[in-house]
Amino acid sequence: MATNSSLPEKKILEGLKNGKIRAYELENFLSRAQAVRVRAEFIEKEFSEAGIPAIKSGSLEPEKARGNIENMIGSVQVPLGIAGPLEIKGSFFRGRALIPLATTEGALVASVNRGCSALNKSGGVKARIVKTGQTRAPLMKAESPEAAASLIRFLQENYGAVKKIAEQESRFLKLKGIEPFVYDSLIWLRMSADTGDAMGMNMISIAAQNVCIYLEGKVSGIRYLSVSGNLCVDKKPSSITLREGRGRHVVAGALLKGDVVRDVLKSTPEDMENLNIYKNIIGSSIAGSYGLNSHFANVVAAVYLATGQDMAHVVEGSHGVTWMERQGNSLKVSVSMPAIQVGTVGGGTRLPAQQECISLIGIRKSGNPGENASQLAEVVASGVLAGEISLLAAHSSRQLVDAHRRLNR
Amino acid sequence: MATNSSLPEKKILEGLKNGKIRAYELENFLSRAQAVRVRAEFIEKEFSEAGIPAIKSGSLEPEKARGNIENMIGSVQVPLGIAGPLEIKGSFFRGRALIPLATTEGALVASVNRGCSALNKSGGVKARIVKTGQTRAPLMKAESPEAAASLIRFLQENYGAVKKIAEQESRFLKLKGIEPFVYDSLIWLRMSADTGDAMGMNMISIAAQNVCIYLEGKVSGIRYLSVSGNLCVDKKPSSITLREGRGRHVVAGALLKGDVVRDVLKSTPEDMENLNIYKNIIGSSIAGSYGLNSHFANVVAAVYLATGQDMAHVVEGSHGVTWMERQGNSLKVSVSMPAIQVGTVGGGTRLPAQQECISLIGIRKSGNPGENASQLAEVVASGVLAGEISLLAAHSSRQLVDAHRRLNR
Amino acid sequence: MATNSSLPEKKILEGLKNGKIRAYELENFLSRAQAVRVRAEFIEKEFSEAGIPAIKSGSLEPEKARGNIENMIGSVQVPLGIAGPLEIKGSFFRGRALIPLATTEGALVASVNRGCSALNKSGGVKARIVKTGQTRAPLMKAESPEAAASLIRFLQENYGAVKKIAEQESRFLKLKGIEPFVYDSLIWLRMSADTGDAMGMNMISIAAQNVCIYLEGKVSGIRYLSVSGNLCVDKKPSSITLREGRGRHVVAGALLKGDVVRDVLKSTPEDMENLNIYKNIIGSSIAGSYGLNSHFANVVAAVYLATGQDMAHVVEGSHGVTWMERQGNSLKVSVSMPAIQVGTVGGGTRLPAQQECISLIGIRKSGNPGENASQLAEVVASGVLAGEISLLAAHSSRQLVDAHRRLNR
Amino acid sequence: MATNSSLPEKKILEGLKNGKIRAYELENFLSRAQAVRVRAEFIEKEFSEAGIPAIKSGSLEPEKARGNIENMIGSVQVPLGIAGPLEIKGSFFRGRALIPLATTEGALVASVNRGCSALNKSGGVKARIVKTGQTRAPLMKAESPEAAASLIRFLQENYGAVKKIAEQESRFLKLKGIEPFVYDSLIWLRMSADTGDAMGMNMISIAAQNVCIYLEGKVSGIRYLSVSGNLCVDKKPSSITLREGRGRHVVAGALLKGDVVRDVLKSTPEDMENLNIYKNIIGSSIAGSYGLNSHFANVVAAVYLATGQDMAHVVEGSHGVTWMERQGNSLKVSVSMPAIQVGTVGGGTRLPAQQECISLIGIRKSGNPGENASQLAEVVASGVLAGEISLLAAHSSRQLVDAHRRLNR
Repeated sequence: MATNSSLPEKKILEGLKNGKIRAYELENFLSRAQAVRVRAEFIEKEFSEAGIPAIKSGSLEPEKARGNIENMIGSVQVPLGIAGPLEIKGSFFRGRALIPLATTEGALVASVNRGCSALNKSGGVKARIVKTGQTRAPLMKAESPEAAASLIRFLQENYGAVKKIAEQESRFLKLKGIEPFVYDSLIWLRMSADTGDAMGMNMISIAAQNVCIYLEGKVSGIRYLSVSGNLCVDKKPSSITLREGRGRHVVAGALLKGDVVRDVLKSTPEDMENLNIYKNIIGSSIAGSYGLNSHFANVVAAVYLATGQDMAHVVEGSHGVTWMERQGNSLKVSVSMPAIQVGTVGGGTRLPAQQECISLIGIRKSGNPGENASQLAEVVASGVLAGEISLLAAHSSRQLVDAHRRLNR
Repeated sequence: MATNSSLPEKKILEGLKNGKIRAYELENFLSRAQAVRVRAEFIEKEFSEAGIPAIKSGSLEPEKARGNIENMIGSVQVPLGIAGPLEIKGSFFRGRALIPLATTEGALVASVNRGCSALNKSGGVKARIVKTGQTRAPLMKAESPEAAASLIRFLQENYGAVKKIAEQESRFLKLKGIEPFVYDSLIWLRMSADTGDAMGMNMISIAAQNVCIYLEGKVSGIRYLSVSGNLCVDKKPSSITLREGRGRHVVAGALLKGDVVRDVLKSTPEDMENLNIYKNIIGSSIAGSYGLNSHFANVVAAVYLATGQDMAHVVEGSHGVTWMERQGNSLKVSVSMPAIQVGTVGGGTRLPAQQECISLIGIRKSGNPGENASQLAEVVASGVLAGEISLLAAHSSRQLVDAHRRLNR
Repeated sequence: MATNSSLPEKKILEGLKNGKIRAYELENFLSRAQAVRVRAEFIEKEFSEAGIPAIKSGSLEPEKARGNIENMIGSVQVPLGIAGPLEIKGSFFRGRALIPLATTEGALVASVNRGCSALNKSGGVKARIVKTGQTRAPLMKAESPEAAASLIRFLQENYGAVKKIAEQESRFLKLKGIEPFVYDSLIWLRMSADTGDAMGMNMISIAAQNVCIYLEGKVSGIRYLSVSGNLCVDKKPSSITLREGRGRHVVAGALLKGDVVRDVLKSTPEDMENLNIYKNIIGSSIAGSYGLNSHFANVVAAVYLATGQDMAHVVEGSHGVTWMERQGNSLKVSVSMPAIQVGTVGGGTRLPAQQECISLIGIRKSGNPGENASQLAEVVASGVLAGEISLLAAHSSRQLVDAHRRLNR
Repeated sequence: MATNSSLPEKKILEGLKNGKIRAYELENFLSRAQAVRVRAEFIEKEFSEAGIPAIKSGSLEPEKARGNIENMIGSVQVPLGIAGPLEIKGSFFRGRALIPLATTEGALVASVNRGCSALNKSGGVKARIVKTGQTRAPLMKAESPEAAASLIRFLQENYGAVKKIAEQESRFLKLKGIEPFVYDSLIWLRMSADTGDAMGMNMISIAAQNVCIYLEGKVSGIRYLSVSGNLCVDKKPSSITLREGRGRHVVAGALLKGDVVRDVLKSTPEDMENLNIYKNIIGSSIAGSYGLNSHFANVVAAVYLATGQDMAHVVEGSHGVTWMERQGNSLKVSVSMPAIQVGTVGGGTRLPAQQECISLIGIRKSGNPGENASQLAEVVASGVLAGEISLLAAHSSRQLVDAHRRLNR
């Protein structure tokens, strides 16, 4: 059905009912706001007995979510709490960060907040970014071993040209390297690139596709199969992510004073050191887990949701290691998070409440591409550290179940 | 500071500023609604330059989120789109399911919708639950090998008594088994239980703690260390989850007609079969990934967010296998999802918009504990199947990057 | 060519040369000893310039290796060294065990011997078997979800009958359980069984095949595909083996005195505790390794080769955890080895030198099926422990490279 | 006790008995041959009831095993069979390879031989080496984040100097790269190097130690902890080995004719293709296995044992992927083996029978360092391919259990 913005609403509702218009076509006839409203009403009548007032009454203007969703009928509201401010001395973020957490799990915000308090009383968190690079691994197929060998050779000899192709559609994308993996006739080209302040998956997907089409034209006997061959590894748990990382690899650590461990966290350095090894290191290893931690994912999910990140990247955010080790009377604690994938521009960060959350944190706007996202990544890791020490302390002293009983009802 | 609801707001703001009152203590002096408002205003002034109108103006009443969050300052709105309805013949859900998706990733809803269309035109989805059981693995420590052996023996000989202890605090929890794992002096007791229509982590944590305290009293030389020893494996990727599952293990499949693959998905059965094996099976295996699929996590995250599930459980939801295999001219497709952890009661499902989303889906209320959550789990898996076939088709024919370029801007 | 033992050797050599007789058919015409000799001579002439005197002159009588090899041309000699005796207090082995090691890696025997010395001076090793059961996971395919469900149900309801089928061909096999795993239409039945003093893979393969053929006849819509579906997991590394084990799961531990660590191992308890965590636990975890240890495989390979075990089972033997933890001035050390697969009867244990090695160890012959193999398993684990402490001590004090430089030339 | 070669044997035996001389000190007083004989007799008397004639009578001259073993008492004989010759078109090996297999598992040689026959009738095997490099990952510790950053920077800026250090002790070692991994304060430096015709672990260990001592002197705040931090990953299963490989990564493939599959292997291309996917790919993936194959380890172990390789490297040899895919009426088959670690010089390759086995294979001596080992690696992979197709065919048609019943008794 052709676009015709003058069609009256009544006719449109009729069309929806008799199937001549599909719900997702409404934007062809109506303004975005109207389309969402009409669609919501149609859906409400057809599928809901009790109505969908909360979905419809959300304060998010449909126009603002253009580019973020199709077939929109309204919005979902998630309660937002805050932890901190947390003192952070990062390579990029320096100062006191407020940590916005959107979650429905009672006790989580309180727990992170307690962790922040313990960290602040011990002098704050040191955070640094040890590696950067968003990754994509397109898949190619060779018709013969010789063709596969040619491809690898071509890549080595023409890396400059390939890099140019990769970077042609965005001034922010900087290719860092391409590692080829060969199995039988299949070749994965695992590409890594910095992508400025954007999370960067779209950027690098475009780059990967351009590179592959280019290579297909240059090396005979090679076919480009897919922009992703699952060695990226996007939104799936993987050993490659634990070790090689993607997005930003951040380490955040602190030296907890012994009396802070006792007074604030209600545990002891010894109990926490031991439990961390037994549970987070050995337990996770026996489980074949890439998350050698207590609950990275909880804090990652809450901050990602608050700041408009891609929620499926919680998967990668759950990878990494929590480390605790006594030093004299103190407890050295740290989290090593190999795959924090955040942006301060693009995607859900454009939405109003999400943008407000980013600004609440206290990120100082930088004009150097990537520095804003790097600040955010350091705050995420620092917040995760707060969550780790608080939960592990609770576990080490049996506080956990009781806290949930109390707060989660 | 003691509760004193008569304190005037002005005094409270003063207290917040001079640090005599902590932000999280406001509920001690004010009604929940007032506390959230005052806290938001204080935070806005202290930490925000541009203000936080969107956070403050969310339509979610603070009182409704009691039990879901602490230190609340407002809410975050996430756009909600719909896919389907999708025809599902499940063991529990039977009928046409509307699939609510809360996401900020442009093109996702459209992609799932396309998948639904292809599935409907091929006769719909068959879904079944092959295993159930929420899991927790508390950790104990034995002072000697003999003590460890005694614990294992006691468990075997007194399973009935242990089961009674586990089930004493909830009429919904039904213990299904306890598997012990021994390394050196550490003993993990991996417990599995059905938890009715609740996602069940709190329920089983309470049960686990009760069981361990009981065992500690019964077997000498055994110390209870933690309610979780990371063999659960909660909110972390793990091999144990891929194989043993947790929550509900659901298989959803369909037989896509050849012409539907061509006309709706713009690919061919052969291309999809091949790419699925190269990418989702071999690529993922080489990556050491537990997600032998394209993007389970995307759809899982969007439905979980819409329906009020725990967003950190997206991690487990990313585990599993997508399978595609030609049968004559058709393409047999399925997803095996070992760890769908959803509830229709408790947690975020109590919030208004989230509750509306659950009811939009078309779940027929059942009085048999667990049947509502089982319906929801089957819908999640069916929606994931729609997402898998649509994305893999796009990958197999190079549509993906273009779709993102078009819709995501 | 039909069997004809009267054919003269000359004619046979002629037949070999002109291709009318195949090398592997020689046993049809000649005694085993003659066949091996003739074959060796033929091969020597055809393929060797320098001759194969060492292969031919091995003292192993061909007749004794019947059932162990086909197409035999002689034998390979591997040097045999000894470590120990090592004091072991096991659940089955009690006394001083001599540890035979067949290896070509210089420094290995000396290193294990040093470990034995340190253990003996600290009171010896405590070993215990925490789990037993050889495993096989045959694969079946269901033509429909209903058929798969029927199979699972049938198994649950007829376990007694299935157990009888499994045990019908051997009086030593005792079925311990069957765990089904379902993905799409594929069903793995992971069976576990005790197999007496035999390593047991043949025994359980026969049992698995019988069970599957039986099930195929009883449940309609089910097809038996293969006696192994790779969830066994035989001779391949796997997470399932680390956690669930196969064969015998043995824990061997000791309390090393501080001065023994210093005087014999030239290290300190602190250095060893730390390096064990950094290297064996964290390093291995980041590597996605199932071997959280230093070099289980070295000692396992050397003892297996000496005692006639299946050398491909070194793979499973490499799985497991080495643990070190200070207790006062001492160092608690242990190895948890989930998959020691050894026999004292069958396979290579029947060969003369191998049998002598088993008897050298000091196993006290038991008439209770399985107790001899259990003793051997405890000795393997204890020897591995000796190897772990010695190598880790060397690593922790930089002795390793020097030892290899000295001994390995 | 000081060296004193004139001590009479009788006195020495006395010293052994009263503990004044240790068994391992005998070489201090006697020739190697004498020492072995005296030690064997002492051990026989002390520990054996039935005697150890087979161990003592082995034809291996003790002098020849100097450098391979300590505390030697004799040798173990393993029966040697042959498979092939197999037609191989490799990047290095070209011609017909005889495959020597030392094993005690009945049916294995026959099975590999059948595989060779099927491959020869289909035109032989194509083999190529896609990557080379032995690996070592020494571990360092930084006293501060800044020190860790300095180390990484120093490495990048002084790679040339570091390479020189690495290569200073051997003219065969060529450093190919160093990849650093950072977690908290720990830094692994994963080094890769070509090592000529030697397997190379000693060579690269020396290089790694030299590099680390050098770096310790150059970068302040850095301590060298251990020559191995378990990211190498030596003799332990690991995801890093499956993906990155070590030693030589070899792909060997062939196109099996349909009638050969039927007549020689008694299966069909369709059955084999399907079972390979169900069992070797999906089954292994669900098991969390790095061996997506049937039994690489069996053939690897048998060839390694025959040719004097390090038997603990069977662990790495078990990693990799078997691939089968119909092409018209034929079946494309291949093995991708990322970690074949073999040498033609050094270690056990120096022993007489082992050297004869290497020469039997038909390797054409090359003066270019590495080419001899590369030939051997291609033969290993080709033999493994023969083993894979034969076993999978047996599995796909239920021949396996019967073959073992027949041959293994």
